[in-house]
Parts: sequence; structure tokens; C-alpha cells
Amino acid sequence: MSEDLRVAYQGERGAFSEAAARRLLGSEVTAVPCHSFEIMFASVTRGDAHCCVAPIENSLAGSIHRNYDLLLDSNLTIAGETNLRVVHNLIAPRGVELADLRRVVSHPVALAQCTRFLAAHPELEPMPVHDTAGAVRLVVEEGRGDTAAIASDSAAEIYGAQVLERSIEDNAQNFTRFLLLLPAGAQPPQIHEQTRRWKTSLVFRTENKPGALFRALGAFAIFDIDLSKIESRPVEGRPWEYSFYLDIVGRREDPPVARALANLGEIAEMVRVLGSYPTRW
Amino acid sequence: MSEDLRVAYQGERGAFSEAAARRLLGSEVTAVPCHSFEIMFASVTRGDAHCCVAPIENSLAGSIHRNYDLLLDSNLTIAGETNLRVVHNLIAPRGVELADLRRVVSHPVALAQCTRFLAAHPELEPMPVHDTAGAVRLVVEEGRGDTAAIASDSAAEIYGAQVLERSIEDNAQNFTRFLLLLPAGAQPPQIHEQTRRWKTSLVFRTENKPGALFRALGAFAIFDIDLSKIESRPVEGRPWEYSFYLDIVGRREDPPVARALANLGEIAEMVRVLGSYPTRW
Repeated sequence: MSEDLRVAYQGERGAFSEAAARRLLGSEVTAVPCHSFEIMFASVTRGDAHCCVAPIENSLAGSIHRNYDLLLDSNLTIAGETNLRVVHNLIAPRGVELADLRRVVSHPVALAQCTRFLAAHPELEPMPVHDTAGAVRLVVEEGRGDTAAIASDSAAEIYGAQVLERSIEDNAQNFTRFLLLLPAGAQPPQIHEQTRRWKTSLVFRTENKPGALFRALGAFAIFDIDLSKIESRPVEGRPWEYSFYLDIVGRREDPPVARALANLGEIAEMVRVLGSYPTRW
Repeated sequence: MSEDLRVAYQGERGAFSEAAARRLLGSEVTAVPCHSFEIMFASVTRGDAHCCVAPIENSLAGSIHRNYDLLLDSNLTIAGETNLRVVHNLIAPRGVELADLRRVVSHPVALAQCTRFLAAHPELEPMPVHDTAGAVRLVVEEGRGDTAAIASDSAAEIYGAQVLERSIEDNAQNFTRFLLLLPAGAQPPQIHEQTRRWKTSLVFRTENKPGALFRALGAFAIFDIDLSKIESRPVEGRPWEYSFYLDIVGRREDPPVARALANLGEIAEMVRVLGSYPTRW
């Protein structure tokens, strides 16, 4: 019964993370809103939730390193992923019209992603708040006729507000990638609309020498394994040393992937597999 | 005369970007605050400012892809870089004490980076605003005895406020890397405290084939050229195709670097050098 599946996410009801959770696991799951990423990870570790859905990168804003760090510090593993297009809408209490508006509230990142709309409406004063969905709750609760929010259409639905203008974001190529995380060894829940394409995510560290990354990637190149993401990150307190975050196409148990990982283990200082999971991409 | 040097940055007086600009170019430059990154790039392109200083990545929050995009769309080139430790301080109008406080205002990212301090002070209600330096201006202008801001100590100095608690951020390993950008062909200004170490930043795209990145990195590995950053990024509207952002150690004119770039040009679909510049790292 998927309503028995408790899925933690960061944000209020109607947040983009909640939409990602329902898209991955079905609309009937029990969503557990958390105030912060730390609380979200802790709720899964403690068993208050079965799993969580965490944003890991955005096509405009880049990787969310904080969630990589929390994942590395946890015993959670990646069990799935989804990619959500971020659509921002102008949302107001029912009965309010565009001409009535004087203020628009939202998360500062959402406001910054709607600069063209805001420039075309200089009468609207932008006001930052913590959360896009929370902004909708606020305008509905306050019931002011001069204030709108910028958020997802599901936030409008949840709080009984109306969408005045759809898709007011500057850049339509605004996607956020979310990971499904659960305790290592736990039975993965049924993932909706999955394909037969698998990915494996890992972190490794090499010695600090020219050509070290080239050699490490050779472990995958000799088996024709495709990469779908690579990112270097400085190692804390060790200048000029780096960790590498890598996503490869294939399942951890596939013989070429298993052999490549074994070879990488021989030449890297550290390798940790973060998960092997089906993808919709 | 460096007071004649007009340096654009995003944010209000006292922003971290302004501190980065003064650190790179000297305290006496004329800083030109801009409301957005777009306006900042435009002010250099139009000639209202000689150069700008743009944050490009943060050790916790990752790369700021928006600024990479604006750089690629512009005719600006990278002429220098600096790395600033982000220190958050609790700042209040003079005469206000910690015990008087009931609210604390700052940018949501700054509030999120001070969760331990805020958890230890549940009497303080966090309130998000657009900008850390703007938060200090706000508490000073409003003159309320119950509200503090979280921002840099230079913001406290500029607005005549006092620092009540220093370094309240959760993670001391919080660094932001800033790039100095100026029109291609313009005479670079004198950079303070530069070392003899140079970096070259580039973007390239390969064909979508396993091993393509491995081969591209081979162009650098055969000359023992060290990499200091690599990051893949999906190409808009072309699933499973990627651009790569690469920083290498060395100057564009160094014979091995020049030869490696020429080789990469032969095997990559696109190569663009974003700049070759001295670094303090």
C-alpha cells in the first residue's frame, strides 16, 4: 500500500520536492514535510520516514553540494531519480485580479528566475520569503487582495488559490534533478514509469598528480562505459586535492561496471558507490 | 589611479562581492553596485564599468551556472580570481544587546548557513530578505531595538552597526570563488597579491560517445598539465550531450598548454577559452 510509504522532503506542502516524490512513487504516498535538509536526512535515519527525495542539481543553479555532503555522511543510498521542469506561476487568492496586485512574494531564487515578468510589471513589489509553497499559504491565509505568490500550480491547488499567469519564468530550460534516498539494505519501493536504463553514482579521490583523473577515467573508457556527470570538488583543508563525483550509465552488478569499479579501486585513494538505480532520463 | 577604476558587482554596498573586488583590485577602486548579474554584465559591456567581479562557485552550494551562461553569452574574459572565506556575523544597531533581540534578518542562504546558532537561540525569529548587506542597512534604517542582521563585518562597518557575535556560520569551510571579468582585449588592471601561478579556464563539447571525455583529457595528460576543476553540464535541448567546464594549471601561451588546446580543438566539437589569469590559490 503506497499510502503507507512515508516519504520525507524539504519544504512545505506543495513544494517542488513533494511533486518530485509523488512523480517517483505515486500520488498516494504519505509526504512528510521537513524544515531543513538535515531534518529530512535525520527523519529517514531514525525511521520516521522510509525514504526521502532530495534535490541534487538544478540546470541553472548547479549542484547542491550540501546534499552530496549529507548523503556521504549518512548510511543512505540512491534508489532512483527524476527530473522536474521548474515552472513558476503567478498565484493569488480566488477573486483577485492582476490589476489589483501591488506585491508578489516568493523564495528569492524564484523571484530571481522571473526577472522579465517582474520588469514588465513594475507596479509589483517583490518580497522574499522562505519557500515558494509557503508563499502561497501566506497569501491565502492573509487574504490580502493586493498580494500574489510565485510557486508551482500544485501549491495553488493545495491552498485553494488560482493561477493568474502560467510559466512566468525567464528560462524554460529550468530543471531540477531529484534523488530518491533510502537506508542501505532497505527494500526499494516501486518506482513509477521507470525505464530499463540504469545509472550508478560514485565519489572517488585520486592522488594529487597530473594525469590522475585521466587514468581514473580510463577504468571506464576501456569498457566503453558512458559517463553522464562528472564534477570535481576541492577536498576540505587539503588545497589542490579534489574529490570527483561521477555518474556512469549501467548497473553496479553489470560485469563491465563491476570490473571498472574494481579497477578504479586499485588506482584511486578512495571510492564510494552512492547507489545504482533506474532512471527516467 | 585605481579610484578611477570602476568595478561592477551584484548586491548592495558591503556585499561579499564588493569585498572580493577590493581584495583583488585594491580598497580605493570605485565599486558599482548592481541589482542583478544581468545588469552587472551589461554595465561592463556598455562601458559603464571597466570590469566586474562575479561569484562563480561556492564550496557548499556548488557552481553558479547562471554566471557561466552570462560569461559565455558575453565578450568578457577572465582576468583574475580570488577566493573569499564567507564569515557570517550577527550585526545590530549600536546599543542593542543580544538579550534584546527577537528577530534576525538576512538572505535565506545566510540564514540556512547559521542553523546551529539559530537553533541555540529559539527566541530569534529568522526573517528572509534579498541581500545580506541590505539586511544590515534595513536594521540600521529601521532602528528597531529587537532586530539583528546576519552579514559580513564590512557591512557592519559601512552602515555603522556593531558585530554582536562573530563567525556564527555552521561550517567554517565556506568559501566563494570570484572571477574578475573584463572586455576581451582590454588592458587588465593591476591585481593585488598575485602569485606566479596561472590558470586557464575553458569550455568544450565532445561528441556523444563513451570515452570521448577520456580522449579529450588525454590532450592535457600527455603534457602533464594539471587540472584544477572539471564539471559536466547537459547541453540544452540535447539529452545525453554535455559541455565540460575545465580549469587547467598554466598560461594559455605556455607551449604545452598551447599545444594541448590545439590538440583538443582537433578532437572536440567546440572549444572556447574563457580566460588565462594569475591566481592566488
